Amino acid sequence: MEPDFTAPGFFPLLTELLRWRRDVRHFRTDEIPEAELLDLLRLAQLAPSVGLSQPWRFMRVRSAAARALVRENFRRCNEAALSGYQGEDAALYARLKLAGLDQAPVQLAVFCDGASPTGRGLGRRTMPEMLEYSVVTAVHTLWLAARAKGIGMGWVSILDPEEIAKHLQVPPGWRLIAYLCLGRPAETHIVPELERVGWEHRQTLEELLVER
Amino acid sequence: MEPDFTAPGFFPLLTELLRWRRDVRHFRTDEIPEAELLDLLRLAQLAPSVGLSQPWRFMRVRSAAARALVRENFRRCNEAALSGYQGEDAALYARLKLAGLDQAPVQLAVFCDGASPTGRGLGRRTMPEMLEYSVVTAVHTLWLAARAKGIGMGWVSILDPEEIAKHLQVPPGWRLIAYLCLGRPAETHIVPELERVGWEHRQTLEELLVER
Repeated sequence: MEPDFTAPGFFPLLTELLRWRRDVRHFRTDEIPEAELLDLLRLAQLAPSVGLSQPWRFMRVRSAAARALVRENFRRCNEAALSGYQGEDAALYARLKLAGLDQAPVQLAVFCDGASPTGRGLGRRTMPEMLEYSVVTAVHTLWLAARAKGIGMGWVSILDPEEIAKHLQVPPGWRLIAYLCLGRPAETHIVPELERVGWEHRQTLEELLVER
Repeated sequence: MEPDFTAPGFFPLLTELLRWRRDVRHFRTDEIPEAELLDLLRLAQLAPSVGLSQPWRFMRVRSAAARALVRENFRRCNEAALSGYQGEDAALYARLKLAGLDQAPVQLAVFCDGASPTGRGLGRRTMPEMLEYSVVTAVHTLWLAARAKGIGMGWVSILDPEEIAKHLQVPPGWRLIAYLCLGRPAETHIVPELERVGWEHRQTLEELLVER
């Protein structure tokens, strides 16, 4: 039996979920219960994937040694990124908090398994990147489900993906799609941090819609 | 004021939405009201984007000429894909319905604008693909919001993305991320079509989770 998605209040609250989902960089350090995390990962598996390839691979990064390697990789990449900005931009960039690697109780590296036969190649002959895009929809599903449970997520991309894959000793064919921090957010906001601090503003649909 | 995502029934229905979201290939031909479509696209804009880059560009493909070019591109790419399968796989592939291009009332080409300065490069120095991944999260947001409104979406990837970009005369720097069909679904299912017809099955979390 198909559920009734027109039930009163559901769509408005879904809309609010989309409006309040943030890329979180400020975490409390209290743990996420194990069962809650696994439930969220099972929901992430409901994401669409090209040819039902399900190429997502979730790696929990728990050991102090592995986390230290990631932390150091971020530090170096962030330093290099900072050096690419000048003047006021550089000052603003330096003040941004771009990772929650020291506080977030849960860290997940999410990979795309390019070597798996699952899906039998369907739908990715002309667009092989569909495999990676499928992993992105799983990451996004996790993000929304976590937010609905009061858990914040931050996607750290200031990392060298190949070095991280080496540090984490992944199987051949695995490619890093996302390095994620999860935990209770220290604060919640409806406005993105990059907008609040004046890095960027949000665009209207009219700026982004064309027709053919 | 932050909404209460713990409101009774919300998370269960969100879970059902994730479980019932399908990649739809069988559409009814009745139109989607214009205002409803624009509302959905505004929700898609709430998706996360690296550095608040908002690189998504939505193109409504409405003209018969543009649609015919896309249809013909799909036909050729699908024929080439079919020739890559043998025996029973080929027979099964030939029976699959892999696009809804003839029925879906709404067709959207979604591009990533790689030339836009928005976001000022933040977060994509080491992972430039983050820009494309951002567009994927907007596509996925649209998918979920549409499903909640009873509108099905199908992501057609059996297309040559560069040829499609040429056919649709996009500005320089735009790259095709997704070609989408939207409309009322002719049927709804909780099980993916590729699983129903025996192309692929779904994996368990235990198969996909590792630890470091």
